Amino acid sequence: MNDRDTRHQQAMQKLKTRVDEKVAEATEQRGLLLIFTGNGKGKTTAAWGTVTRALGYGYRVGVVQFIKGLWECGERERLAEDPHLEVAIMATGFTWDTQDREADTRACEEVWAQAERMLADPEVYLVVLDEITYMLKFGYLDIATVKRALDNRPAEQTVIITGRNAHRELTAMADTVTEMNEVRHAFNSGLQARRGIDY
Amino acid sequence: MNDRDTRHQQAMQKLKTRVDEKVAEATEQRGLLLIFTGNGKGKTTAAWGTVTRALGYGYRVGVVQFIKGLWECGERERLAEDPHLEVAIMATGFTWDTQDREADTRACEEVWAQAERMLADPEVYLVVLDEITYMLKFGYLDIATVKRALDNRPAEQTVIITGRNAHRELTAMADTVTEMNEVRHAFNSGLQARRGIDY
Repeated sequence: MNDRDTRHQQAMQKLKTRVDEKVAEATEQRGLLLIFTGNGKGKTTAAWGTVTRALGYGYRVGVVQFIKGLWECGERERLAEDPHLEVAIMATGFTWDTQDREADTRACEEVWAQAERMLADPEVYLVVLDEITYMLKFGYLDIATVKRALDNRPAEQTVIITGRNAHRELTAMADTVTEMNEVRHAFNSGLQARRGIDY
Repeated sequence: MNDRDTRHQQAMQKLKTRVDEKVAEATEQRGLLLIFTGNGKGKTTAAWGTVTRALGYGYRVGVVQFIKGLWECGERERLAEDPHLEVAIMATGFTWDTQDREADTRACEEVWAQAERMLADPEVYLVVLDEITYMLKFGYLDIATVKRALDNRPAEQTVIITGRNAHRELTAMADTVTEMNEVRHAFNSGLQARRGIDY
């Protein structure tokens, strides 16, 4: 074995030891609360990636789309026929298009009722509350209601929350928080949103 | 309309104007280069979310897994039967397990040959180079080879690169770069990786 190979082997052994130690320390198993926040691309996309993953094992999944409901959505199309997936949509479109606070609040409450049902159902392994952060920000939903539903959910149920500016009370109770930060976005260079990639 | 509703309506109108302006400015359509990097959870997951999305419209997709090939992978299971999806796997497991630089380099070159084929195929709408950043970091692949294949790919083809520490030459040529930063990770609180969620 030459020097470079030996150094490589030693570095990898050190890394392996560190990984093995962390794996040994991780002993708890239960449903998680994950938050994908930040201003970059990938929050909803990572949520749908996890949906696909969970469906891959035959788990039941519920997705509640609080904003992008009226958009074409390739992943919804791709997975729609899956009997383990339920999607609830707040079908008022983007809130800056409607500009009607009362109608949006009603629409939000209706779709939240479906979220609450999923969050109370021990058969549902994963619930995605897509873009719910904006509902809290706009005051369509109150944080105490959301926290209560999350606190009381079945122990084995994982929840993913997506959206910018996640409420600090949600962040505080989450197991995993990833901030997706925009370093660069094609849209700002004059590139149009692309079918099958951006939506 | 009461004061609060009026203020809401005005704020939304302002937001709508800004969004509409940006949409009007975005006029170019072509394949994109996206990078999901950073130390947080969600990079590979967002890539698979995009795969699901593209398949939802019937586009052809190629995924090359440079590291996690031996892991169980729910999304691969879920989508495996899709005739529009091809997955190529570097099946040597994690590199800190093998600790064999020469064998890893050969395995990397083999799977890279499949990536090159996909990157030259105008029928492939989306190519995911999952965790290729580590191949560059470990010196199994050289940056010039990867850049050349990306530069020469079909104009309509989108490529997603995932992994920590993306090479600055890749970042420089990308259309969209998101840094997924770990704010908190369940694993560090003693929670085990969870089936259908983490893998």
